[in-house]
Amino acid sequence: MRTHVVGIDIGGTKLATVVADSTGHILSKVRKPTLAEKGPEYALQLLFEMVRETVASADLVQESVSAIGVSCGGPLDTKTGVVYSPPNLPGWDALPLKAQLESEFHIPVTIENDANASALAEYRFGGGRGYNALLYMTMSTGIGGGIVIDGHIYRGANDSAGEVGHQILLPDGPPCGCGKRGCLEALCSGPAIARRAQDAIQKQLTDRKAAATRLLNLANNRIENVKSEHVLQAARTGDILALQLVEETAYYMGWGIANLVNILNPDIVLLGTIAIAAGDLLLDPIRKTVSEFAMPRTAEAVKIAPAQLGEALGDLAAIALVV
Amino acid sequence: MRTHVVGIDIGGTKLATVVADSTGHILSKVRKPTLAEKGPEYALQLLFEMVRETVASADLVQESVSAIGVSCGGPLDTKTGVVYSPPNLPGWDALPLKAQLESEFHIPVTIENDANASALAEYRFGGGRGYNALLYMTMSTGIGGGIVIDGHIYRGANDSAGEVGHQILLPDGPPCGCGKRGCLEALCSGPAIARRAQDAIQKQLTDRKAAATRLLNLANNRIENVKSEHVLQAARTGDILALQLVEETAYYMGWGIANLVNILNPDIVLLGTIAIAAGDLLLDPIRKTVSEFAMPRTAEAVKIAPAQLGEALGDLAAIALVV
Repeated sequence: MRTHVVGIDIGGTKLATVVADSTGHILSKVRKPTLAEKGPEYALQLLFEMVRETVASADLVQESVSAIGVSCGGPLDTKTGVVYSPPNLPGWDALPLKAQLESEFHIPVTIENDANASALAEYRFGGGRGYNALLYMTMSTGIGGGIVIDGHIYRGANDSAGEVGHQILLPDGPPCGCGKRGCLEALCSGPAIARRAQDAIQKQLTDRKAAATRLLNLANNRIENVKSEHVLQAARTGDILALQLVEETAYYMGWGIANLVNILNPDIVLLGTIAIAAGDLLLDPIRKTVSEFAMPRTAEAVKIAPAQLGEALGDLAAIALVV
Repeated sequence: MRTHVVGIDIGGTKLATVVADSTGHILSKVRKPTLAEKGPEYALQLLFEMVRETVASADLVQESVSAIGVSCGGPLDTKTGVVYSPPNLPGWDALPLKAQLESEFHIPVTIENDANASALAEYRFGGGRGYNALLYMTMSTGIGGGIVIDGHIYRGANDSAGEVGHQILLPDGPPCGCGKRGCLEALCSGPAIARRAQDAIQKQLTDRKAAATRLLNLANNRIENVKSEHVLQAARTGDILALQLVEETAYYMGWGIANLVNILNPDIVLLGTIAIAAGDLLLDPIRKTVSEFAMPRTAEAVKIAPAQLGEALGDLAAIALVV
């Protein structure tokens, strides 16, 4: 009897396969490096093996598996199951991922971009349970987003809805990886926070010949080593520059979220990675800005909280697509 | 047999009631001033009479009517049918509009805010036919919005989704009616365009002691009379200041729409009133800014066009809710 499902989480640095029962309970997991430079054919063969290994290590046979859910960086087409050159997967150009997995395993395969799948996982298993209009926002290397309405991923016209990180706030602001300027992602992603920190330290060094911040120490006195983690760490100990950087990050995040709240009127906004690490240090000033910048009716309807699935998110994202 | 429907369009200055058949074809219409200063009780009694008059003038009896759709300024609660103090309807505070109409006519009543109902009407009868992810934006006294996904109005957590006019672009920008600053509405609504025009003329008068624009002439040489219509009229004749104002309006609209396009990934954005009057004079530079500011995949998926229902929009908005 086909009682179990397989989840595949495809990232630029790691691949993970999991087997879960129909309630989403994970029985086994295999994790390997993507070795993205070896291209998609290598990764696919590796995934085929990993799926078999994961099923076997759950003490199941292949015939126990009813479906495969795949969470993968976009852009991709959920209907055809074709992946179109995700930035973190060089060579995955118009790759018919769904077709290749279906032809290998002869069971239905659902593919979804990772931000959407993560949003669905938070809805099914995490902080979004019971909410009808959920917005999930990653906050790590980039700022992605997924919208879940009445339990369904909102995909838009061509699977590209939820590009919340490319909301432009400052058209003359810092350059973004997407080629524009002043996107929310260019202001509040991990690398963007690090860059703002590095610029601020450089300015202190230029103006005063000394940095009045612990940030440099935390980064072994190398300005280029300063990361968003150091900013959070220093802010927790009261470092003034770090606190200013957190405040500024919260202002831009709050502004962007307020706009999203006015447009989507969600009942919950769940924030990932950096927001989880930072907690209320970052979330409280975000909430304050949202309540200042959003309309009273949309602001009062929304809860802003850290995402809850943590390390399990990638696995559950893939699983959420098929349970 | 209950073969027909009634639509009620409630505005701050006029009330309209229509009768339509099941295809949305309008058979009769009655229109009267709201006289908003007389309060909701007066308006309600007037609406009761107007409904009866409209049904009679369509040569129908009350028993032919299966349902009533009401398009009304929000905020309102579509589930309970209670209207909460719309800015243009003083005294309509927690008014149980649906209950009062149902108790008068003994048929189901559906109420919806006017921007959402208009979006649905464009989807059913206008420029949005055949599109699965539609964004409609009013562009008149204010900038409202309605989102129709797969034929259904997207309402959000508490019927407040689509507040696209209160997307903040310039937190230090001009004040908005909502109490914030630099909302899209504070930059691109009719009054906002007029205000920018008036400021620009004032600046010319101060700097050069003379206005190098036809705008003043069009407004009978009274700066405070300059309206958005004059800006469009002067721009069509090549007036440089008016063309700059149109360009600036298109820039802000395009910026705001690009953000919406990245978030919602619509296949069509329909723009009302001012955009209809302006046509490609305004729409072309809006399209240009959207293609510059939005992600390529979302920009290529969207068509930006004027709304099509024109004068009939209000009537069809109410009707679209019940056919």
